[in-house]
Amino acid sequence: MQTSLKIAVVGSGLVGSLLAIYLKKAGHTVHVYDRSPDIRKINFSGRSINLAMSNRGWKALDAVGVGDSVREIAIPMDKRAIHLVDKLNFQNYGQEGESIYSISRGKLNRKMIDLAEEAGAEFHFEQKVWDVTLSEATLHIGESERGEWEERKFDMVFGADGAFSRIRHRMQRQSMFNYSQEFLNMGYKELNIPANADGTHKLDKNSFHIWPRGEYMLIALPNLDGSFTCTLFMPFEGQNSFESLTDRKMVEDFFEKNFPDSIEVIPELANDFFKNPTSTLVTMKCFPWTYEDKIALIGDACHAIVPFYGQGMNAGFEDITVLNEMMEKFGNDWKKIFSEYQISRKPNADAIAELSYRNFMEMSTKTADEKFLLQKKIEKVFSDKHPDKWIPLYSRVTFSDRPYAEALAIGDFQNEIMEEVLRLDNIENIWNTEQVENKILELLSK
Amino acid sequence: MQTSLKIAVVGSGLVGSLLAIYLKKAGHTVHVYDRSPDIRKINFSGRSINLAMSNRGWKALDAVGVGDSVREIAIPMDKRAIHLVDKLNFQNYGQEGESIYSISRGKLNRKMIDLAEEAGAEFHFEQKVWDVTLSEATLHIGESERGEWEERKFDMVFGADGAFSRIRHRMQRQSMFNYSQEFLNMGYKELNIPANADGTHKLDKNSFHIWPRGEYMLIALPNLDGSFTCTLFMPFEGQNSFESLTDRKMVEDFFEKNFPDSIEVIPELANDFFKNPTSTLVTMKCFPWTYEDKIALIGDACHAIVPFYGQGMNAGFEDITVLNEMMEKFGNDWKKIFSEYQISRKPNADAIAELSYRNFMEMSTKTADEKFLLQKKIEKVFSDKHPDKWIPLYSRVTFSDRPYAEALAIGDFQNEIMEEVLRLDNIENIWNTEQVENKILELLSK
Repeated sequence: MQTSLKIAVVGSGLVGSLLAIYLKKAGHTVHVYDRSPDIRKINFSGRSINLAMSNRGWKALDAVGVGDSVREIAIPMDKRAIHLVDKLNFQNYGQEGESIYSISRGKLNRKMIDLAEEAGAEFHFEQKVWDVTLSEATLHIGESERGEWEERKFDMVFGADGAFSRIRHRMQRQSMFNYSQEFLNMGYKELNIPANADGTHKLDKNSFHIWPRGEYMLIALPNLDGSFTCTLFMPFEGQNSFESLTDRKMVEDFFEKNFPDSIEVIPELANDFFKNPTSTLVTMKCFPWTYEDKIALIGDACHAIVPFYGQGMNAGFEDITVLNEMMEKFGNDWKKIFSEYQISRKPNADAIAELSYRNFMEMSTKTADEKFLLQKKIEKVFSDKHPDKWIPLYSRVTFSDRPYAEALAIGDFQNEIMEEVLRLDNIENIWNTEQVENKILELLSK
Repeated sequence: MQTSLKIAVVGSGLVGSLLAIYLKKAGHTVHVYDRSPDIRKINFSGRSINLAMSNRGWKALDAVGVGDSVREIAIPMDKRAIHLVDKLNFQNYGQEGESIYSISRGKLNRKMIDLAEEAGAEFHFEQKVWDVTLSEATLHIGESERGEWEERKFDMVFGADGAFSRIRHRMQRQSMFNYSQEFLNMGYKELNIPANADGTHKLDKNSFHIWPRGEYMLIALPNLDGSFTCTLFMPFEGQNSFESLTDRKMVEDFFEKNFPDSIEVIPELANDFFKNPTSTLVTMKCFPWTYEDKIALIGDACHAIVPFYGQGMNAGFEDITVLNEMMEKFGNDWKKIFSEYQISRKPNADAIAELSYRNFMEMSTKTADEKFLLQKKIEKVFSDKHPDKWIPLYSRVTFSDRPYAEALAIGDFQNEIMEEVLRLDNIENIWNTEQVENKILELLSK
C-alpha cells in the first residue's frame, strides 16, 4: 500500500486527467492545475486533428475502468479510404475486427475531466503556473509572468502541460538536461465536412479518409454528429503551400484541381481556410524526465511528436500504464518509480517520434503508390498464414502493446526483406504464390 | 556608408568584445552589457581550457588591426606531444611554420575589452539582462529575475552571451524556432603544471600535450609565465570517472598509474582536483539566429560546441568576419545582412559541431594508435607532393578559411580513400612508395 501523498498535476488535458484518475485510485490527494478555462464551459474548435484511439490508449483507459465510457463517443475506422484524383481505394488497417477509433479531442477531454472529478481529483482552472521549485515540488502561480505569484507546496508535481511545458522549462535550465525541438516546414489547418440534413455522414463513416498528394495531403475523420473533421497538411512556403494560397478563388481552384471529390462536401472551404489558424508541427525530445522523487514529466511535456501515426495520445496514455506498473512494483520508493519509468519510456518515446515522422511519407505518398499497396498485400497474405512470424509494423504499433522501439527495429528489418521480395521478377503476378512465401521464410531465417 | 545605429551587444566575452570593435569601426554607437563584474578587476581561473587560436581567429583579429596586439600573449604550438604510458611521440600539426597558438582565456578577454574600449565601445558590467523585446530591440535589465527591471531601447541587439544565452532564450519561445542542447556524459577539470623556479616550462613549450587513454585523456597547453593549464576529460560515471575518484589517495594512484610522467609536474594534483569544479560539455544548435533587422545571435549563443577541435572561439570570430562581409555588401539593408549571415553560417556551424564531437575520439584514442599515425604519415607525404590534390582535414579546419562544411565533406571522402589504402598488403612497409601514391591518385579520380 502506498503512503498517501499530496500531488499536483499541471495540465488538465487528456494525459493530465487520466493520470489524475490513476493517482486518486492509488489513494493520493490530487490537484489538477490548468492555465485555461474549464474546457467543459467553452467552445473548443478550430485547431485540432481528431484523435485516433488504438490499443495502447484503450489499455490505459480499461485498466482504470473508464474505457466503456469513452467507447460511447468513439467511431471505429477499420480501413483507409484513399482518395486518388480519379478513383477511391480502400485498405484495411488490420485483421477482421481490428479498428482505430475516431474521437473528438474536445469531447474526450470534457469526458476525462468529468471522470477525474468523479474519482475525486480537484481541478483548478485559469490558474497559471509560471515556475516550479524542483527540490520542493512547489508551484508558483499568478495572473502574469511578471506579476505577483503565490506558492503552493506539494509532495510531488507531474508536468502534463504539453509540448510547451512550463515544468519542463524549469528543468531545461538545469545542467546536463538534454533537449531538442524541431519544427516541420509544414503546417496544418482544420476544415469541416458537415453532416447530411438527416444527420448521416457524407463519406464512408468507418474509414480514415486520405487524399495523398505527395508534398501535401488532406485527411478526414468522422464525428458522432455526422460531420467529419478535416485536416489539410501542407508546406508553409513554396509552390503548393499555405503562403501561395492568398485569396478565396485560389483556395477553391486548388481544391477543385487537387481534391475534386472534396469540393461538394466542404461547403465552407474558403471561409474555414481563412478563419482557422495554420498550426505548426513540432517534435520535442528531452531527458531526464524526472527530478529526484519530486517532479515527473509525462505525455507531450516530455515527448511531443508529429501526428502522422495517430499515436500522440496513445503514447501519453501508455506513459501512465508504465508509471502505474512501477508504482505497483516499487511501492513508496518514488525515486525508483521515477527512475524506472523514464528509463523504460525514453527509448520508446524516441522510437514513436521517428515512426511518426516517417509516416507522413507513407500517408501522403506511398498510399498512392501501386508498389506500396502490393507490398501491403504480400505482407497481409504472409501474416495471415504465419501470424507468429510476421506482424506488420502498423499492427505492431497500433494493435499491440509491444514496445515502440521493438516495432521500429523489427519494422526496419521487415522492410529490408520486402524490398528484396519486390525486386523478384514478375512480382506483380506471382505475389500470391508459394515461391514468394518461401522467399520470405528464407529471408526471415537468415 | 552605413547609417549610424545605437547597438547593444549582450556579453563581454571574446566574441562580444571583438564584435564591438567591428561595429565601432563601422560607425555605430556600441553598448556592451555583461551580468558579471569586469573581468579585468577579478581573479579569473579554475574552469577554463586554454584557447587554441588558429587561422580563422587571426583573420578576424587582423582584419580589424588587433592581431599583433594579441600575438604578444600567444605561444605557438606546431605539434602534438603524445604521452603514451611508456613513451613520448611527436606529431606535427601542419607544414613547416604552421602552428596553433595557446592563449589564456582570461588574458585574452581582458585584452579584447581594453581594445574595444579604446575603439570607443562603452561597457556596462554587472548589468543583468533578463529578457529582450524582440520587435523593439529593448533590453530588460535588473538585479534579479523576479525583481524590478529597467528598459533600454536600441536600434539593434546582438546576443553574444554564450551557450546559455538569455537573448536566445526569448527567441526559443517563438514558434518555429528549432533548438537542441546535448550534454556529453563526460566532464572536464582544470589542473595546473607550474613553471620551474627560473620561469621556464617543465614540458616542451611549443607542443600541445596529450595523454590519450581511450575513454579519458589529459591535455596541457602552455602559458606565458612558464606554467601549463591542464585539463582532464573523463566520464562523470563508471569505472574511470570523476565519480569513482573520491579521495586524495585515489586521485594520486589514478594519475600515478595512468599518467606516470605527469605526477612530478602537477604538485598540487589532489588539491586542484577537489578544489576546482567539474564542468560540463554541451553541443547546442538552433535556428533561426536572427529576428528581422533587430536581433542577431553570434558565437556560442547560436552554436556552442565541444572543445575537441579547438575551434569554438575561432568559429565565433569567423561569424564576425562573415557578418562584416555582409555589412560591406548590403549597406543599410540589415534584414538582408542578417538573413545572409545566418544562411551562410548555419551549415558551417553544424559542420564544426560534428567535427568537434568526432575529434574527441581522434585525440583520446587514435593518437595512441599506430595505424592512425601511419595514416597521418601517408597523408603528409602525399599532401607535400600534391598540395593541390590533398589538404588534410586538420589543416583545412585549422590553417585555412575554407568553409567548415566543405572540410567535413571532403574529410569524409579522404577518410574513405585512406581506409582503402590502409588495407593494402604490407602497407606498413610500402607506405612511402609510388604504388601507394598511385593508388591514392586513382581513388581521387574516381
